[in-house]
Amino acid sequence: MRNILLTIAYDGTNYCGWQIQPNGVTIEEKLQKAFLGMDGSRVKVIGSGRTDARVHARGQRANVVLNSTVPTDRLPYALNAKLPSDIVVKNAKEVPMDFHARYDALGKTYRYRLHTAEFKDPIERNYHYHVSEDLDIAKFKAALETLKGTHDFKGFMASGSSVKTTVRTIDEIEVHTVDSNNIDVYISADGFLYNMVRIIIGSVVDVARGKRTMEQLEEALKHQKRKQAGHTAPPQGLFLEEVRYGLND
Amino acid sequence: MRNILLTIAYDGTNYCGWQIQPNGVTIEEKLQKAFLGMDGSRVKVIGSGRTDARVHARGQRANVVLNSTVPTDRLPYALNAKLPSDIVVKNAKEVPMDFHARYDALGKTYRYRLHTAEFKDPIERNYHYHVSEDLDIAKFKAALETLKGTHDFKGFMASGSSVKTTVRTIDEIEVHTVDSNNIDVYISADGFLYNMVRIIIGSVVDVARGKRTMEQLEEALKHQKRKQAGHTAPPQGLFLEEVRYGLND
Repeated sequence: MRNILLTIAYDGTNYCGWQIQPNGVTIEEKLQKAFLGMDGSRVKVIGSGRTDARVHARGQRANVVLNSTVPTDRLPYALNAKLPSDIVVKNAKEVPMDFHARYDALGKTYRYRLHTAEFKDPIERNYHYHVSEDLDIAKFKAALETLKGTHDFKGFMASGSSVKTTVRTIDEIEVHTVDSNNIDVYISADGFLYNMVRIIIGSVVDVARGKRTMEQLEEALKHQKRKQAGHTAPPQGLFLEEVRYGLND
Repeated sequence: MRNILLTIAYDGTNYCGWQIQPNGVTIEEKLQKAFLGMDGSRVKVIGSGRTDARVHARGQRANVVLNSTVPTDRLPYALNAKLPSDIVVKNAKEVPMDFHARYDALGKTYRYRLHTAEFKDPIERNYHYHVSEDLDIAKFKAALETLKGTHDFKGFMASGSSVKTTVRTIDEIEVHTVDSNNIDVYISADGFLYNMVRIIIGSVVDVARGKRTMEQLEEALKHQKRKQAGHTAPPQGLFLEEVRYGLND
């Protein structure tokens, strides 16, 4: 028996998200099926966390306890041969038996891709959020700046989710203006609430196009008021880039 | 009656190419259908040239002689409302009645996107060519350099195509190494033979991964020998970026 940590990339366009569900094809299910035949019985794939329908990943992590004798460095090849072309296992490494991809995660980095132009871009339509209004980049950056650090992000969480605490620490926010029409935002935190990145991006976009004020954003943060925050940016702009552990990796 | 020049972007993934054909959905057909209802009769969409199945465009051009009274600057909105999400009209402008998008083209620029990594990237799989071998970038650039200028490119043309002359002038080749795994090649010429960019890219990739020699490439160029050139790179890495005319645009 080995405990294996996988690094997985996927195009979320055609999936109902990460987590197995009765009605709809998911990434977890495709991975579980790829392990069938390799292991005697059905394996449990433990992801670092869920991603929503149409959300992408370049650095999702998941661990699996395996009986199979396939050498660890051959696992990506064996799995990729069975996976559809929109899911790729990039790496496999052995980890201690008590390692848990979700509980042991120390932090994550998400990327959110924005496209600002009069017309949408048909080629990237499933991989960014098209905003047709002009954005005030100075306001955009200033709004993001206020969210850095440790805060109760309850105002930036989709309703209906239950967690022990809604306090999170955003360690870093980087804004890359790729060119005059494309902005990439990287947000790193010790953890994220449900829809937190998408509500953050929706809120700062609303500030940057004049639909919300900085004061409303601060209100949402200080008094945990979801209604004061902005809209939820769509899923296809979101990429899970990295999950960090206390391993040497 | 007006003669309108359109600038069109499209994701070629789900199309059998530009040109209308009996079996398969094409971009030209979708455009023609978008004009129905706007004009009394079926319009003729004259493209700057064909693109193959799965080839993309950010700057395809086409002209259409219209009876419709829709103002020229509103045409993109009217057409985009009828087009599927993977085809977008970015611009429309009135041109002289004798303007012809194919005959009047002075030059074109294509981009070809290469991805070098052990595993394919599921997110960009339909938008680049994945080469799993390491490429010698110095050789890659040197091989491209020999193709610049005016040559008979018959050795870099797919067999079965008939053209008056196979002499073309490559004005410019730019290699952008986006990062250690991604290379963008921009090739500008007065015109391109059938599959010319894809055969050029396939050939220089073969030189850069040691499957062909520079001497073979030079042979293919000097003696117009298709067999000495390399393989035809796949369509999904190819983007028609720009078509140039003698207009003020």
